[in-house]
Amino acid sequence: MPTAELRLIPARRGAAARASAGQRIKVINTHGTQVVDTWAFSAADAAEWMSMEASRAWFMKLRAAVGDTFRTNQRRPILTLVEDTSGAAHDTLMAACDLPRYGLLGVTGHHDNCRDNLHAALAVLGVKVPATPSPLNLFMNIPWTPDGALAWAEPISPPGSYAVLRAEMDLIIAFSACPQDILPINGRTGQTTEAHFTIQ
Amino acid sequence: MPTAELRLIPARRGAAARASAGQRIKVINTHGTQVVDTWAFSAADAAEWMSMEASRAWFMKLRAAVGDTFRTNQRRPILTLVEDTSGAAHDTLMAACDLPRYGLLGVTGHHDNCRDNLHAALAVLGVKVPATPSPLNLFMNIPWTPDGALAWAEPISPPGSYAVLRAEMDLIIAFSACPQDILPINGRTGQTTEAHFTIQ
Repeated sequence: MPTAELRLIPARRGAAARASAGQRIKVINTHGTQVVDTWAFSAADAAEWMSMEASRAWFMKLRAAVGDTFRTNQRRPILTLVEDTSGAAHDTLMAACDLPRYGLLGVTGHHDNCRDNLHAALAVLGVKVPATPSPLNLFMNIPWTPDGALAWAEPISPPGSYAVLRAEMDLIIAFSACPQDILPINGRTGQTTEAHFTIQ
Repeated sequence: MPTAELRLIPARRGAAARASAGQRIKVINTHGTQVVDTWAFSAADAAEWMSMEASRAWFMKLRAAVGDTFRTNQRRPILTLVEDTSGAAHDTLMAACDLPRYGLLGVTGHHDNCRDNLHAALAVLGVKVPATPSPLNLFMNIPWTPDGALAWAEPISPPGSYAVLRAEMDLIIAFSACPQDILPINGRTGQTTEAHFTIQ
């Protein structure tokens, strides 16, 4: 197989691409500390999207492991986690960051955010969706306690580690290199970096 | 305060109502074993809704406790759990059941489902929403393990126990008495019952 084109998810920005059923989407944590919010939409109907709440009800886990399949809001398979060298601490629980979220964290005025990055990346492909689905937060480390308390922890993914998602239908994949620089979710507070992906 | 009108959520069906900021919405598990999927939408703009993913990111728990406030997809307070006699095992993780879900469980043809109940109940009020938000599943008992495995457990709520949610904005509240009769989520498999609510 020829080497796939290495595509950029710019620091604090989004990117989107089309993929066909059976293709492998490799998401590389180039610098090891970067959360990549990830969404997938059916190519046939962008109102059918990868659903964290339907996926958890399918694989019956808070976090997917290699072999687990994410489902859409129509309960159809859309992505399967087929390979992972990152430690597979990927979050399914937290909303994409957005401008009101940064407001709650004390930011006044503009702040880059994953919600806007999603919609801007989709717009490049001419795609519009009527809501912001809850994302698969690749490399985002949200531990839980027996009592159900959650925390914002640093990523455990080494630099250059990756997750590979197999497309189970023709789809649009969208990413945002999370610009969260107030909580330590991207490693050392204040640090936000680029990431990369390939489709082949 | 006069006694509030006791309103019915019919077995396997939905119901919706308007509530004003400051009102108390009491959801009664009349028979003790009934999951009640619950949604809330801003009265000013039904595209702003209670978001489980934004709420978890706010109260930093898998389950809300008394005193915790649910947030919208614009991160604004919408409902606060102010009183609870049910044991407060309310799920925030699982999608509302829908027809494709019952298909995966082996049902052919129609099956009552919470998604359709939501949209039918909203339609009675003349409200239409562009997606099905992840619900607050009142009385739904989804335990987790330290490894993150989830399970469908029976409710722990005694008959007549209740949860009280305070409206933090003018809103539309919607319920579905979950018609899940294949998994034991409503107590003994096959059992689905009515529930009730008051607003005052």
